[in-house]
Amino acid sequence: MSDTSSLDALIQALRRLPGIGQKSAQRMAFHLLQHDRAGAQLLSQALAQASSHVRHCVRCHTFTEGELCEVCQDPGRDTARLCVVETPADQAAMERTGAFKGLYFVLMGRLSPLDGVGPRDIGVQELLERAGDGVVQEVILATSFTAEGEATAHALAEALKRRGVRVTRLARGVPVGSELEYVDLGTIAHALADRR
Amino acid sequence: MSDTSSLDALIQALRRLPGIGQKSAQRMAFHLLQHDRAGAQLLSQALAQASSHVRHCVRCHTFTEGELCEVCQDPGRDTARLCVVETPADQAAMERTGAFKGLYFVLMGRLSPLDGVGPRDIGVQELLERAGDGVVQEVILATSFTAEGEATAHALAEALKRRGVRVTRLARGVPVGSELEYVDLGTIAHALADRR
Ligand SMILES: [Zn+2]
Ligand SMILES: [Zn+2]
Repeated sequence: MSDTSSLDALIQALRRLPGIGQKSAQRMAFHLLQHDRAGAQLLSQALAQASSHVRHCVRCHTFTEGELCEVCQDPGRDTARLCVVETPADQAAMERTGAFKGLYFVLMGRLSPLDGVGPRDIGVQELLERAGDGVVQEVILATSFTAEGEATAHALAEALKRRGVRVTRLARGVPVGSELEYVDLGTIAHALADRR
Repeated sequence: MSDTSSLDALIQALRRLPGIGQKSAQRMAFHLLQHDRAGAQLLSQALAQASSHVRHCVRCHTFTEGELCEVCQDPGRDTARLCVVETPADQAAMERTGAFKGLYFVLMGRLSPLDGVGPRDIGVQELLERAGDGVVQEVILATSFTAEGEATAHALAEALKRRGVRVTRLARGVPVGSELEYVDLGTIAHALADRR
């Protein structure tokens, strides 16, 4: 793309971002250098700052900058209920509902044998220890309702039940606000089976 | 997304990239922090380096790290022919055909009144001076064959012809509606040979 080794290095570095190929990386580099150098510097600093400051909460594994995240530090949470989610974004969605007052365990991924993600990568051993601490009375599995999320939930449920921990799963059903005719049949079938 | 201000700042900074919304920015930040901190640091350094070192060639306006880009410095180029392209990526595509031995003028954009991009933003005055220097005998307009690229070519052709400069346009071998950067090299080479 011309004799600019800094530019070529930037394009290659942008390709480390998930889902970004050569053309997108070129377009991004061009945009930043031509129209938004302030944005380039901001992003440079944000990357340096985050990659040196962000760590994992020792209790729930989510991203945090201290030893414990804010949720784990909150004395008002119900310590008897532990919700297992895949990512910090899923945890944030759960928090926004305002419907859960317990604590979390964030897997930071899900079991995916084809991608080489095994039990150790998502902290299964730590989850089992946490769930068996005598304080937790119910583990709510809130992994995704995808093939991998379901497989992860199934594996965790088996391991937890073997240790006598009570395990529940988020209900499958018709999304609030949707008309039945537009909902996929598998979802309707599950909602029927799980009717209360 | 939890109590991580560095993480939030990173997500906001990633949204400065073109085409990246909140969800994509979250996914990128999560990926870098969870799986590729080395990539995050590499990208941070590449952004800092490029945004401080990359400048514009004083002659053709493309990205370069010196005063003049390599093409403009090359004594073997045909100084009588000047090819006008929109971006460094378009210039690189033209170079890869091996069919053009002249020099370039890189607009670093195209006329787009709706986006507030006018003649000054694409260096029309510098192009007119360059084309009227007595050395240039033909200006080949190789802007995109899109509505904005055609309008830009039309405006440049009018201004150049008024000054008595010979103006040609890449032949319409290039598929209408496509951007030069994405066209196969043979088509570009034919369009160059058939220029009118
Ligand atoms: Zn925590
Ligand atoms: Zn140059």
